[in-house]
Amino acid sequence: MIHITRRERFNAAHRLFRNDYTDEKNLEIFGKCSNPNWHGHNYELFVTVAGDINPETGFLVNLKDLSKIINEKIIDKLDHKNINLEVDFMKDKLASTENLAKAIWEELQNPVEKLGAKLHSIKLYETENNFVEYFG
Amino acid sequence: MIHITRRERFNAAHRLFRNDYTDEKNLEIFGKCSNPNWHGHNYELFVTVAGDINPETGFLVNLKDLSKIINEKIIDKLDHKNINLEVDFMKDKLASTENLAKAIWEELQNPVEKLGAKLHSIKLYETENNFVEYFG
Amino acid sequence: MIHITRRERFNAAHRLFRNDYTDEKNLEIFGKCSNPNWHGHNYELFVTVAGDINPETGFLVNLKDLSKIINEKIIDKLDHKNINLEVDFMKDKLASTENLAKAIWEELQNPVEKLGAKLHSIKLYETENNFVEYFG
Amino acid sequence: MIHITRRERFNAAHRLFRNDYTDEKNLEIFGKCSNPNWHGHNYELFVTVAGDINPETGFLVNLKDLSKIINEKIIDKLDHKNINLEVDFMKDKLASTENLAKAIWEELQNPVEKLGAKLHSIKLYETENNFVEYFG
Amino acid sequence: MIHITRRERFNAAHRLFRNDYTDEKNLEIFGKCSNPNWHGHNYELFVTVAGDINPETGFLVNLKDLSKIINEKIIDKLDHKNINLEVDFMKDKLASTENLAKAIWEELQNPVEKLGAKLHSIKLYETENNFVEYFG
Amino acid sequence: MIHITRRERFNAAHRLFRNDYTDEKNLEIFGKCSNPNWHGHNYELFVTVAGDINPETGFLVNLKDLSKIINEKIIDKLDHKNINLEVDFMKDKLASTENLAKAIWEELQNPVEKLGAKLHSIKLYETENNFVEYFG
Repeated sequence: MIHITRRERFNAAHRLFRNDYTDEKNLEIFGKCSNPNWHGHNYELFVTVAGDINPETGFLVNLKDLSKIINEKIIDKLDHKNINLEVDFMKDKLASTENLAKAIWEELQNPVEKLGAKLHSIKLYETENNFVEYFG
Repeated sequence: MIHITRRERFNAAHRLFRNDYTDEKNLEIFGKCSNPNWHGHNYELFVTVAGDINPETGFLVNLKDLSKIINEKIIDKLDHKNINLEVDFMKDKLASTENLAKAIWEELQNPVEKLGAKLHSIKLYETENNFVEYFG
Repeated sequence: MIHITRRERFNAAHRLFRNDYTDEKNLEIFGKCSNPNWHGHNYELFVTVAGDINPETGFLVNLKDLSKIINEKIIDKLDHKNINLEVDFMKDKLASTENLAKAIWEELQNPVEKLGAKLHSIKLYETENNFVEYFG
Repeated sequence: MIHITRRERFNAAHRLFRNDYTDEKNLEIFGKCSNPNWHGHNYELFVTVAGDINPETGFLVNLKDLSKIINEKIIDKLDHKNINLEVDFMKDKLASTENLAKAIWEELQNPVEKLGAKLHSIKLYETENNFVEYFG
Repeated sequence: MIHITRRERFNAAHRLFRNDYTDEKNLEIFGKCSNPNWHGHNYELFVTVAGDINPETGFLVNLKDLSKIINEKIIDKLDHKNINLEVDFMKDKLASTENLAKAIWEELQNPVEKLGAKLHSIKLYETENNFVEYFG
Repeated sequence: MIHITRRERFNAAHRLFRNDYTDEKNLEIFGKCSNPNWHGHNYELFVTVAGDINPETGFLVNLKDLSKIINEKIIDKLDHKNINLEVDFMKDKLASTENLAKAIWEELQNPVEKLGAKLHSIKLYETENNFVEYFG
């Protein structure tokens, strides 16, 4: 079995909070991440796909195609955006790294299959110390 | 001459725009950075101080003291904050990396001198591809 | 399935040797790592936990809690310490990266379960060229 | 189960193309990588082996031995070489990262078993944005 | 004084040799880098410009413009190319990192001045262990 | 003017303390770094030399020669050693990063001049957050 991974990056604002929590409870659960005026991150996204090597090209998938899909479906919607307010696939979801990784999986699963590969994992770094991996 | 550098990090939201520009002009000059709903970054800050080695301790400055000053004067005010709305020393300034590096210099110059060293430079990474250095 | 990973760091001294080996044999098996006067490393520790996303918080676990546990159980005992002489959970064990990763797993397995997650892996870098992963 | 990983590096030239394609088709499929005058990369190779900890040494394998094997079988043949023209185990293969990772696996599988471990994966970075993992 | 730096990357093949040296002398002076079949690198280029902050925009230069110039003048000519054979500004020069950094300076000095800034330095990484800085 | 930099690495143990201080005072000034049982680091050393490009080779200095000198004079004496107890050029000095960078400068200044270049700076990382630069 072989995996190939493409790294892409985006810079976005977000906030962690619940409308049905008091400000005190939001602060207790979400800490500084609940700041009403937003904060942001340089997110690093690693998309890993699995499959067989095409004997004609030596490629699992053409990375040019994979990168194009990731940019159209994900990066163009997230880069220099507010995750809570502007990203269709995050509407009505808490803007946690976990939920974001899962939503990115759901956006990419079908397009990756059309390339002839299987989506294996979404790895998403929020900071150099924290990252999430989602396997479907 | 010897320099010692301390790295600290903060995650913040910002927006580049001028009230006296039309939306079109803001977009033309500031590109995606002018998004009205904010975006954000994991900023990396390198504070470099210059001086002589204290023969008693082998230190130029005690990094514990330098780190404390940087956290009190800079990181606590910027981390998980909105640079345009919430940071006293950025009030009425365009929230560019250049202006932010210069403002950090102005906040740190006196406190670093009280440690017995000279502030040499502020290096500020906005992304892995872009950084600014300010030398006073 | 989803994984979340927290990176923490510690700086420690160690030595690889066996009392029942001659100095020559220690040098043959353990090379420079058997130096009787110790040497040391900046270790990087990646703790990965697995579980489901809590729909109320969007979190698998609260990273503040995970970081607190790692610091109390592991970092406070290893940072700026001698692994052979001062670390209770490494007593009478060879101070190899493999044994250290396994011992960290054993210290963290129960506390992580109390957070409501499953410990998935311990990844421990000794240098930029060498790292170990332990999966229980 | 425990894994240990050794990183090694090599700098090589290559070209992606097929003799049975026209220049236009090579350019369409392989893009800039089909340049007839070659281009090159700083490849990063991560070799991961799996096994049990030897209770006498605390080692899964002695990394000195693992590094020696990787250098003799792989690095000495690839470093500062042309992958298409000079590497015996890549003869008559498309010089893609996928094929290179698979060929490295085939070269290392037996020698790693002679060390008393099992080859787990070959991870090969072509650039900071693209890497392949092969699991046999 | 303020500096701003933009990082760009290119992957290229090269060879270090002199026609007026014997093969033995080329090998003695240039080592593995003299391999007649080429080898290559992932080069990292840091272009630093100096100047004053424009009070209207908060920018020293608009990085979009700086990046455009670097790509047009340098990256498009070097990326996925053979430095010895295909790069006009390296014609008849030894393809060393030193000469390459100096040639990049000469290509960028005038275009950077037209942006209203002063070229301060060209920093060029050939590998993670070796880099050159040129200051004009 | 041109600079070329070579990175080398070493792993060592050390301790910060003064015999003429009480344990309490050592702890107050040097914190955890005064631990009597030592601790250690993966040090990263960047040696930068300045000079002119040799028109015959395209080199400022041959990095093979520079690396050989750094290894003989510095790395072989520090790697897997105790800085306080085993390093001749650190005898009777506090084992701070500042003093270590200065001592490395003194060891390398003459040998680098014999290569036909000028030693420009010693940059020494103790951790990813702290580094020192010495300019003679």
